[in-house]
Amino acid sequence: MDIGIIGATGYGGVELFRLLYNHPEVKTINLYSSSQSGEFIQEIYSHLNNEEYVLKDLDTEVMKQQLDVIFLATPAGVSSELTPQLAGGKGVVIDLSGDLRLNSPEEYTAWYKKAPASEEVLKQSVYGLSEWNKEAIQSAKIIANPGCYPTAALIGLGPVMHERLADPSRIIIDAKSGVSGAGKNSNHVTHFANTQENFRIYKVNQHQHIPEIEQQLGNWNEETEPITFSTHLVPMTRGIMATMYVELNNVLSLEELVDLYQTAYKDHPFVRVRGAGDFPCTRDVYASNYCDIGLAMDERTGRLTIVAVIDNLMKGAASQAVQNMNLTQGIDETTGLMHVPVYP
Amino acid sequence: MDIGIIGATGYGGVELFRLLYNHPEVKTINLYSSSQSGEFIQEIYSHLNNEEYVLKDLDTEVMKQQLDVIFLATPAGVSSELTPQLAGGKGVVIDLSGDLRLNSPEEYTAWYKKAPASEEVLKQSVYGLSEWNKEAIQSAKIIANPGCYPTAALIGLGPVMHERLADPSRIIIDAKSGVSGAGKNSNHVTHFANTQENFRIYKVNQHQHIPEIEQQLGNWNEETEPITFSTHLVPMTRGIMATMYVELNNVLSLEELVDLYQTAYKDHPFVRVRGAGDFPCTRDVYASNYCDIGLAMDERTGRLTIVAVIDNLMKGAASQAVQNMNLTQGIDETTGLMHVPVYP
Amino acid sequence: MDIGIIGATGYGGVELFRLLYNHPEVKTINLYSSSQSGEFIQEIYSHLNNEEYVLKDLDTEVMKQQLDVIFLATPAGVSSELTPQLAGGKGVVIDLSGDLRLNSPEEYTAWYKKAPASEEVLKQSVYGLSEWNKEAIQSAKIIANPGCYPTAALIGLGPVMHERLADPSRIIIDAKSGVSGAGKNSNHVTHFANTQENFRIYKVNQHQHIPEIEQQLGNWNEETEPITFSTHLVPMTRGIMATMYVELNNVLSLEELVDLYQTAYKDHPFVRVRGAGDFPCTRDVYASNYCDIGLAMDERTGRLTIVAVIDNLMKGAASQAVQNMNLTQGIDETTGLMHVPVYP
Amino acid sequence: MDIGIIGATGYGGVELFRLLYNHPEVKTINLYSSSQSGEFIQEIYSHLNNEEYVLKDLDTEVMKQQLDVIFLATPAGVSSELTPQLAGGKGVVIDLSGDLRLNSPEEYTAWYKKAPASEEVLKQSVYGLSEWNKEAIQSAKIIANPGCYPTAALIGLGPVMHERLADPSRIIIDAKSGVSGAGKNSNHVTHFANTQENFRIYKVNQHQHIPEIEQQLGNWNEETEPITFSTHLVPMTRGIMATMYVELNNVLSLEELVDLYQTAYKDHPFVRVRGAGDFPCTRDVYASNYCDIGLAMDERTGRLTIVAVIDNLMKGAASQAVQNMNLTQGIDETTGLMHVPVYP
Repeated sequence: MDIGIIGATGYGGVELFRLLYNHPEVKTINLYSSSQSGEFIQEIYSHLNNEEYVLKDLDTEVMKQQLDVIFLATPAGVSSELTPQLAGGKGVVIDLSGDLRLNSPEEYTAWYKKAPASEEVLKQSVYGLSEWNKEAIQSAKIIANPGCYPTAALIGLGPVMHERLADPSRIIIDAKSGVSGAGKNSNHVTHFANTQENFRIYKVNQHQHIPEIEQQLGNWNEETEPITFSTHLVPMTRGIMATMYVELNNVLSLEELVDLYQTAYKDHPFVRVRGAGDFPCTRDVYASNYCDIGLAMDERTGRLTIVAVIDNLMKGAASQAVQNMNLTQGIDETTGLMHVPVYP
Repeated sequence: MDIGIIGATGYGGVELFRLLYNHPEVKTINLYSSSQSGEFIQEIYSHLNNEEYVLKDLDTEVMKQQLDVIFLATPAGVSSELTPQLAGGKGVVIDLSGDLRLNSPEEYTAWYKKAPASEEVLKQSVYGLSEWNKEAIQSAKIIANPGCYPTAALIGLGPVMHERLADPSRIIIDAKSGVSGAGKNSNHVTHFANTQENFRIYKVNQHQHIPEIEQQLGNWNEETEPITFSTHLVPMTRGIMATMYVELNNVLSLEELVDLYQTAYKDHPFVRVRGAGDFPCTRDVYASNYCDIGLAMDERTGRLTIVAVIDNLMKGAASQAVQNMNLTQGIDETTGLMHVPVYP
Repeated sequence: MDIGIIGATGYGGVELFRLLYNHPEVKTINLYSSSQSGEFIQEIYSHLNNEEYVLKDLDTEVMKQQLDVIFLATPAGVSSELTPQLAGGKGVVIDLSGDLRLNSPEEYTAWYKKAPASEEVLKQSVYGLSEWNKEAIQSAKIIANPGCYPTAALIGLGPVMHERLADPSRIIIDAKSGVSGAGKNSNHVTHFANTQENFRIYKVNQHQHIPEIEQQLGNWNEETEPITFSTHLVPMTRGIMATMYVELNNVLSLEELVDLYQTAYKDHPFVRVRGAGDFPCTRDVYASNYCDIGLAMDERTGRLTIVAVIDNLMKGAASQAVQNMNLTQGIDETTGLMHVPVYP
Repeated sequence: MDIGIIGATGYGGVELFRLLYNHPEVKTINLYSSSQSGEFIQEIYSHLNNEEYVLKDLDTEVMKQQLDVIFLATPAGVSSELTPQLAGGKGVVIDLSGDLRLNSPEEYTAWYKKAPASEEVLKQSVYGLSEWNKEAIQSAKIIANPGCYPTAALIGLGPVMHERLADPSRIIIDAKSGVSGAGKNSNHVTHFANTQENFRIYKVNQHQHIPEIEQQLGNWNEETEPITFSTHLVPMTRGIMATMYVELNNVLSLEELVDLYQTAYKDHPFVRVRGAGDFPCTRDVYASNYCDIGLAMDERTGRLTIVAVIDNLMKGAASQAVQNMNLTQGIDETTGLMHVPVYP
């Protein structure tokens, strides 16, 4: 396969490069950057010291003719403009930004404060939550790769929502992320001295991933009401944990719930459901495509606590995008993705 | 004042020493340790390299006669035995463990899996939540210093619970703590390689601070039902954030809520309530006795999010104990505690 | 005393504020900032949430009349211009930048790439290495507070250099610092994701603290030759360790060396010399004014290894400046500085 | 290939498993553990949650018959006993401990305080510094995989020592390592609260890697004298930097030195020599087999500073062992090792 990565100098782009560099079905990787074209990638990232890749200028016509897969690892607001220029060619477009995820242009503008993509592009876009949308992804030409928080939240909530076991009016998600989620730009919050030995809450009730989560919950249960969603910054680089509080419509034991989850994901090798009483930590999935899930049923309160962890740059971005690439190309979805998590 | 610290070699004890060493009303500090008596404190803690303090054996009779304040910085299960031997003397006993906090011996045993203190001792013990129990503390002879998580949770929930504005059947607390909360013992979880670049959940629905929080919430509103309470380990040494989700009985604007909180704490110099839209991070209170609070009212869901941060070793343990000491000794509660948080 | 801090919004300034806020001899603290005058300090630093201090514009005439001590916590290049305007008044000027430390204007320009201070100002400036220049400091009107690396290096090398025991042509200093040494500006290097779980070397042989160290070494031994000096960035916020390699002119045992150091610093309460075989770590001096020293004499090589640790923002900047203030004001040098290091 | 890993539950063993799991030439991986045989590896390491590998008891006869490569990832003192039982069979033995590295049994006992391996085993053992001993490794049946510090130090010093350009009596190595180097045992030093926000020096002049470095330096130049070698603990999990100070016999420019290094390593894909003025950080090689090198020639002092970085668990242990495995098995040395460093 011949691959293009647009926005190759961001965290998402450089992580895609790392994965595709060792992907057995990838023949060429072409890196594009509007701001830094002409530079070698190792001039920007010193860990890539021996890679002789030059950042190219975009040439959408050539790309449409030559590339099998084009990844957009660009900020919100860029993909909505680029996708129409890249779609309709030989390859599949996989967008890692939030531009193509929301069906409603109004919702997009309300949360992202930007002009939305065209309705035509939005209609063609398939939501790339690999475990829950596999068939549609396999035949898609444009894929909206899910956000990092929605990936953890939706894989965690999927089984009880899909089975309509959870009260859709009382969903609370308390999410925590490493600093790489904020991207590579330097600012007051990403400054080491403000983040190390610190724990921070941000965008309370205002995170742009809220409508994305609600949209998919609504697909599972149209009675879904607005969720409560909080995001926190953990003094680490990678990793997301979503701790989710749910009320069940009927009494279920922890063992029944574990069984429900293990059954739901039994054909999905990247979701690992823990046994009763066992909870994952973010390190368990570091630098891998896994989403690990733990469950607790509190008999005192009747509430279910669901814990889901991912690596935000992997399952929350680049490796899920490669999983989606695999699905569209008719190869096994695990190809090039069976990394053992890096530990310690 | 002449002071004794029992359990001087734990994190709580060494932090008490740090505070009392520069407290203007403290004349002598006596350190006690059953396991390491005879050693100099600097043989155990190299940062105390120039302090010539010898760890003494307990002599409860002498202590009762000579000491104005005795701090118990011992693990659960020890204070229940020592307190009867130390009470009834000249001084005040302030216990930093969980042994004397719960009115019900049955609850204690259920959550702590240990034999409870005698009912007589429990009856004399005053819960040392300084901001909400000031009068009782001022005349107490035995003080049960609150746990770290309950301090953050209760200062955060106090105003809406005391005014009966919150639905007492739907309280969810998602709490996060630095590693020092686990104490100085070395084990798999406190190993650097298992904690740095990692985020972990633990004791889901099973933390022994749950009944302590419920007891005080019940004091404010007897209709309080079991709470949902989750605890997480943050890769940092100090700091707690409690993110709390509450449903209000009546519609209140964010401005009204901020006003309610600022009024409730206006005579309490260690509680700092942020303005609308402003949230504290744990670094804001590092190495200080402050509890900082932020509030968010979500119009989409009708839920209130309350954020409270403390330094778990300070307001969550040692400095709140000194605040209580000040109250019992008839001196200004801020004496020796007006530290500016250490930043960066 | 009435105090002024110019450059109050940098790390040095905010640390000075923290120390002076609880200094028993300080009556007023006046904060100055050219870029942010008119703002409250808590709008810039959220940990100072209850401090009602307004940043003022400079008025050098008023300051000269009213202030007992004026701290310059400004970047290199500013103090050389401000000092002449502030000197000659009632108070003492203590400069935390590098502008007044080098006797030679040429050396200053060579290393700092800026215009030097006037020769007149340089002649009046006293190098504020408290332990080695106490008398001159006591009567000084302008003090050049030492740099963070030079403080650790010179306290570590002082005894063997002053006694001319070390070969002055073979001094190698391998220094390591926390990130706060880079200041509060956000850039690629201070970004959390580039610093956490990373160890970096920088400014090899080119750090501007080199001539400052050599100048003082030359005061002790005029045969001092250029030193080798490397600086590294440690993924932590505070702390410096200087590991120094020295060849002795004569054979001395480790015990003799420890004795030499303990004697040299016996009247200096902020220098703590460890016994043979014991080495300090940076945490031992965290948030304190201490400099801890450890020594190793290698019989295989005949080389002496000297280890010195400080908190770069304290003994390496703010608290040494307050120590110098105390000396100039005729009060005990430990006043307001007897902090127990914060641990853990 | 059929592989065995003895000591599979340590950091070295689990890292070998991660690498061999995706190695294209590996057919089976057999894990052995004397202390935990019968357990599944995922009961010990939760990140391996879906791997159904059972820890086996040692059966050296079967192993000798069946296994192509046996890795010993055991502590010092174990390999010296096991190697004679495993050698002489079908496969190659690769020992990651220090037991087989020193030619002299007396030196081993002096530094390791343990009984040495038999002289016969020591004679058969080939030092596995892949870049400098390739031919001998290719035909070896027993390989002593180098220590983490020696790997960085020797790759860094190799070109100038091999060419006899450096004064062999004046070599100073100031080395820094992440905490994983201390292994998975929990103790005071590996406790998070004692390591995070801390920088520590340890084993000054006494590290057991000293004779290993000196032995290889002596191979290059028999006039090598005892080196000065200091080791420090960095608050990070992975990574080593060795900062080395060398005096050259003849004047060479930085450009000549860079050229010398680039030429020396031009056929060694895992050593990346930086251009003049460019220095690597440990993050540049994270989770990879690279050793990156930077050079500085100080005209003021005439001293050369050499900086070498590796991932201590990879090039410093497991991935170098796999590189050696590849060499012994007649396959390209890069097979299964072309990981792009994980960033950020």
